[in-house]
Parts: sequence; C-alpha cells; structure tokens
Amino acid sequence: MENIQFAERMGSIRTSVVRELAKYLSDPEVISFSGGNPANSSFPVEQVDEITHDLLMTKGRQLLQYGTTSGYKPLIEAYIEHIAAPKGLAVSEDHVITLTGSMQGLDLLCKVLLNPGDTVLVEAPTFAGALNVFRIYQANIVSVDMDDEGIMVDQLEEIFKTQSPKLFYCIPTFQNPTGKTLGLERRKSIAELAYKYNVIVIEDDPYGDLRFSGEAVPPIKIFDPDDRIIYLNSFSKILSPGLRVATMLGNPEILKKACVAKQSCDTHTANLNQAIAAEFLNRGLLPGHLAKILPPYKVQLDTMLKAMDDHFPSCCSYTRPEGGLFIWGEFQKDINMTDMMYKAIQEEKVAFVPGQTYFVGDTQKRAGTFRLNFSNATVDQINDGIRRLGRLFREVIAE
Amino acid sequence: MENIQFAERMGSIRTSVVRELAKYLSDPEVISFSGGNPANSSFPVEQVDEITHDLLMTKGRQLLQYGTTSGYKPLIEAYIEHIAAPKGLAVSEDHVITLTGSMQGLDLLCKVLLNPGDTVLVEAPTFAGALNVFRIYQANIVSVDMDDEGIMVDQLEEIFKTQSPKLFYCIPTFQNPTGKTLGLERRKSIAELAYKYNVIVIEDDPYGDLRFSGEAVPPIKIFDPDDRIIYLNSFSKILSPGLRVATMLGNPEILKKACVAKQSCDTHTANLNQAIAAEFLNRGLLPGHLAKILPPYKVQLDTMLKAMDDHFPSCCSYTRPEGGLFIWGEFQKDINMTDMMYKAIQEEKVAFVPGQTYFVGDTQKRAGTFRLNFSNATVDQINDGIRRLGRLFREVIAE
Repeated sequence: MENIQFAERMGSIRTSVVRELAKYLSDPEVISFSGGNPANSSFPVEQVDEITHDLLMTKGRQLLQYGTTSGYKPLIEAYIEHIAAPKGLAVSEDHVITLTGSMQGLDLLCKVLLNPGDTVLVEAPTFAGALNVFRIYQANIVSVDMDDEGIMVDQLEEIFKTQSPKLFYCIPTFQNPTGKTLGLERRKSIAELAYKYNVIVIEDDPYGDLRFSGEAVPPIKIFDPDDRIIYLNSFSKILSPGLRVATMLGNPEILKKACVAKQSCDTHTANLNQAIAAEFLNRGLLPGHLAKILPPYKVQLDTMLKAMDDHFPSCCSYTRPEGGLFIWGEFQKDINMTDMMYKAIQEEKVAFVPGQTYFVGDTQKRAGTFRLNFSNATVDQINDGIRRLGRLFREVIAE
Repeated sequence: MENIQFAERMGSIRTSVVRELAKYLSDPEVISFSGGNPANSSFPVEQVDEITHDLLMTKGRQLLQYGTTSGYKPLIEAYIEHIAAPKGLAVSEDHVITLTGSMQGLDLLCKVLLNPGDTVLVEAPTFAGALNVFRIYQANIVSVDMDDEGIMVDQLEEIFKTQSPKLFYCIPTFQNPTGKTLGLERRKSIAELAYKYNVIVIEDDPYGDLRFSGEAVPPIKIFDPDDRIIYLNSFSKILSPGLRVATMLGNPEILKKACVAKQSCDTHTANLNQAIAAEFLNRGLLPGHLAKILPPYKVQLDTMLKAMDDHFPSCCSYTRPEGGLFIWGEFQKDINMTDMMYKAIQEEKVAFVPGQTYFVGDTQKRAGTFRLNFSNATVDQINDGIRRLGRLFREVIAE
C-alpha cells in the first residue's frame, strides 16, 4: 500500500530524543544519565509475587473478568486512604478514577476538553511526553518561564489574562526535567489565578513521594475549593511502571466524561494490576518500601552533585533537588547540546538529554541546557560518567 | 466549577444501553442475556497463577520496569507462532504490535488515520463500542447491510465507489451482535474491493477461536497482498479480558504511526500481562484450554437455540451461530425493543439488548431486532429465561 494518508493531527509529533538515543544505549560501555526509569533494584518483586498469588487464589475469576471503566473500587478506596488523604485530599470516591499510567490521564483530559486550536499552557521546560499529547490534540501550546523556585507567577497571570488557556499543565514537585519544587506561596497563587481566570489545571505529581530530604509541600490541589485542579498520581515511581497503574483525582463531572472516553480507549485498566497496587497499600507496605528505596536514590543524587561540583566548568550551573529523578544543568554560554550529546556518546561513552527536547519552541537561550538522571547508574558509574562529561564540557568550553 | 466546556468531539457519544442496564442486573433474580463477558468459569486461574509466579521469579525486575511501546517481544513472537501463523498469517515481527485490549487498536487507528468528517463504513448492525470510537473521532459513519451470510458485497462496492470511505470496520467471524460468519468468497471479494477502491480495512476477530462446530474460515487478511487490512486479535475471549492484552497485525508503516500515538496514550501495555499471555502460548496451553471451555459454551448455545425454537413466536427469526457469544433475533413486525427490554426486566426478570444499540441511525426497520448472549447463564437459567422471554414476546405480539 502506497501513499498512506495519515491524519493531520499526527503531523506535529516529534520523535523523542530519548528514544533516538536507545540504539546507542545498547552498548554496555555507555553510561546513561538519559532515561527516566526508576532503578531496577527498587522493585518489590517478592511482595508483588506474594500479593499476586493471594489475589489470584481468593478472587482470581473476578480479576480475570472485565472490570469497570472508572476503576477497581478497592484501589480507589486504598488510594484515598493511603495516598490522597495524607496529602490533605480526603475526597469521596466519585472524585477518583484509575488510569493505565498517568499519561492516559493527559490523553483523556485532552480528548474531553480540547478543541483544535485551544491554548494549553505548560512550564518551560516541561515533560516532553506531555508536549506530544498536546500536539496530537492540535493545541496551541504556550509556555511560562521558571526561575530558581519554579513557575514565575507574574508571567503566569499575564498569560492567563491575555491568552485565556483552557488548560495549564504543571509538575510542581521535583519537576521533570528540572527537579525544581514550587513553594507553598506560589502554589496558593496558582490556585487563585486559575479560579480568577477560569483555567483548568492539570497537576501531575509522579515524583512527590520520592523525597530524600527537606519538608513535603502539599499539592496545589488542596487550595482548590472550586474543584478545577485535576491531580494525577502514579504507581510507576513508587511501585512499578511496568504494571501501568495511576490515578486521577478531581471534578466528578470531568472524571465522568473522561470515563466515557476511557471506555472507548482501553475499556478499563487491567484488574489484576489495580488489585496488586491496592493490596500493596492495604497491607501497609508503601512506607517501608519508600524507606528502603529512598536512601539509595539519595546516595546517587548526592554522588552526582558532588561529582558535578568537582568536574563541571564553573560556567555550568545546575539544580540541587531534594528528590525525584532529575538534575537540570544550564550553561551561561550558547552551546548546542544536541551536538554535545552525540560527542559525549561517541567520545566519552556517556549519555544525557539535551534541554531543547523539553521546550515548546527552539530558542537560542535554551540551547545550553541539559537533563541528567541519577537513578539508573551505580555510584561508580556516576563518578566515572560525570568525570568524563566534565572533561568534555571543559574541552568544548575552551574551544 | 460551573459550565465546563467539553470538547465538541464528545457531543456525539451515546451511553451504552448495556451499561444503563447494569443497575437492574444487580438484582440476583434477573437472568441476564445482555452482557458480552466470557464465562467466569472459563478463566484458567491456576495456570495464570503458576505462570505469574514463574515469571516474577525469573524476570520480575524486567517485567516491573518500563517496557517498549510496540510490545513485549516474546509475546509478539509467540502470537505469530501460535495464533497468526496457524491462521495463514506467518508475518515478520514488524507486522505486529501489542495493545491494551483491541478497543485500543480502534482508538489508535482512528487517531492516526482519521480527520474529522472522514467516512468510516461499518456493518449494520455492528459492535456498539466501535461506533462510539468512530463518533469521538467525528467520523461520517455509514453502514452496509447484511443478509443471512453477512455483508452484502454488491452494496459494499456501491458504497466504496460512491462514498470513498477511509476505513471499513468489520467483524467477519461470529460477529457482534449477529453471530454471523462471512463465507470465503465474500472475504476474497472484500479484499479485492478494498484494493480496487483504496480502502483500509479493520478486521476485528475477537471471537474466531470460539468455534464450537463447523469448519474454520481464514481471516480476510490472508487475501491482502497490498497490506491494507489490519487484523485485530484479543486475549479477552480466549484467556482473560481483565488482563487487557490484544494484538494488531498489519502494515508496518501504519503500525509504526500507531506506536507513536500509543506512546502518548498509555506508553506501553503492562509487561506482566503481556508476559502471562506469551507464556500461556509458549507452554502450549491454549489448545487444551479451548478444548476445555468450548464444549460448555456449545451446550449453552444449543440450549438457548432449542429453548427459542420451543418458546419464541414464529414471527421471530434468529441466527444459528457456530461459535462466538451471541445470537441475533429479528421480528418481522415493527416492535419497539427498548420498551420490550424494560418490560422483560420488570415483568419477567430477564435482560437482553435491543438491536438499535448496534445501528448507526434509528430506522423503523431495525426496531424489531435484539441480541442475546448465552455465555453467562447456566443451562437452567437459559431454559427458564428464554421461556419467560417467549411468554412476554407472545403476549406483546398478540396485543
């Protein structure tokens, strides 16, 4: 079959640099700081095995049968009790549906809320995967800048006022790609501005529970009496991404419509997977699991920051996150980081992601930025890889 | 939040009558012939439990980690070897991706192929869930009539010629809702006409392996040298719907684009679930499993047909399928089957689905049709329920 005519909406998609990188990463000598996966060692395999066996033996036939689109009820209850309520979100069950990964939440919300040309506001930089969802729905994507403390609220208000975005998408805690966490006052301001300018906010929080130090900050969602903030949580970083289980909490009217759309996407999220997540929470395993996986992540983060302090040139600044999976770097000089990425892989056998991937447009200002992931390398690999990367950076800077 | 403005695409969705019925079905006295679920007793719980344990113990960390969007490779290999090749489809691996249920295949194909207003041709009647997917993508949905042997090929050519559909969606074997199976010659004709008029065909085959008698007919896909037929298979009816695993086989260029879209939907299908399906095939369990579940289904079907012969009025005709999950009935009189459905539930405590659900438009001609499912009731319930339904039918006819 020749000349297949694809839909117009697919024309705007960009292929992910992270996926392009995949072919180089099969080389076992390459040290990769490019992905965003949780550490393989973090998965509670034995607990999942025990839970799964118990579930199949007690309600196997129910779990292997079709389930309800809005979600497996015991998971919705367990999520509210063990995750949402402790964050200050003790909502009723009609405020939560389950998802096949939180990416699905973005897809469903776009499907039920966006007409082509509607404006979606994102942070600059933001999660590249989210940008592709908004592109598929042919949104007019605009972005708000961040300073060291995250979203710049004055600029946000200006954009809310002049561009009337339908949706504002943000990751306020340990943001991907920057690792930045928004303070309490800015969170309150965002909620107030969303109300004032009639914007629906998607608050994506996959990393919030990966806090290694400092005090937890509550979700923006708790400052939302008007029920216009939709809060996404995922089991991908605290239990397993391979199970594809996440939750969406918010306005029941929007969730009901999202369920209608979900019915026509994947009918429902796999029951067994939802039941595993529910049991993991109900058996009280999450706190112990986090207590086990967070210290190694902290060691990896601290090792990387120390190595960067030691080896990176002084014209390179970077974030010092208290959690999450990412560090964000920025050169004060105009450097093409995509070229640098290929050089790093070929000459130094180290991989990272150039920052442009995470911006809507391609401006010069953003050329000198990059993202590093610390969760998938050993301490030795981190020390070695950052030393090599520092050597390359110094060389290129000196040119 | 008041006056939420939803996207235009959501305006055309119909709520499913089957779901509306759900509130009545919680009454344990109601005998339901309305659903489409496989029998609870058909699930191989012990085998799934054993497989899952083995998988978690041998590659648990890999399965709980992120996977690839195109699918878990061992499942793609096992699907080709154990399911596709025996049907005459011994394709290479780039011709198959995995899905989170075959509904997702419809969503992805619409996403990558349809612009609003594009014409999609369906069988009349057809799977109601598919109609909602096409509605969400704002397709111009037209339908081709069926006679006793399925799709009327002359009419199909006329529609291909005059209306240039982008997609033709069909379920050629044990169709939902009619149970009809298209013969070999018509299959060949459809493939030829699709080539002649440049139509992409979605061949949905969730029921093909549920054959209780007669000879298997090969997929339309085997008559497709131009690679324009996309063939959907699902594990929902032969293993478990709750696991949400299906496959899409076809043109690699279309599948590649569908993968780009899937990346922005659910990233990938849950690994553990895909691995369970792969192991189920690789351990050679499918033939024995089918040999175990098909005879009880045949008893249910035969019981229902015999009871219909005994109790239904003579002005009601119905299909006599050789497999699948459904029987389709039709009155030669103009009867409102939605009213009949409520009467049946309230007066006789029996549920079925009125045929209008499965048609694009609401014409008088289609008013006297209905669908019965036989896989979720015992032999006693079938005898009892059909007797009661026959009594109601006779009463109403006599009025």
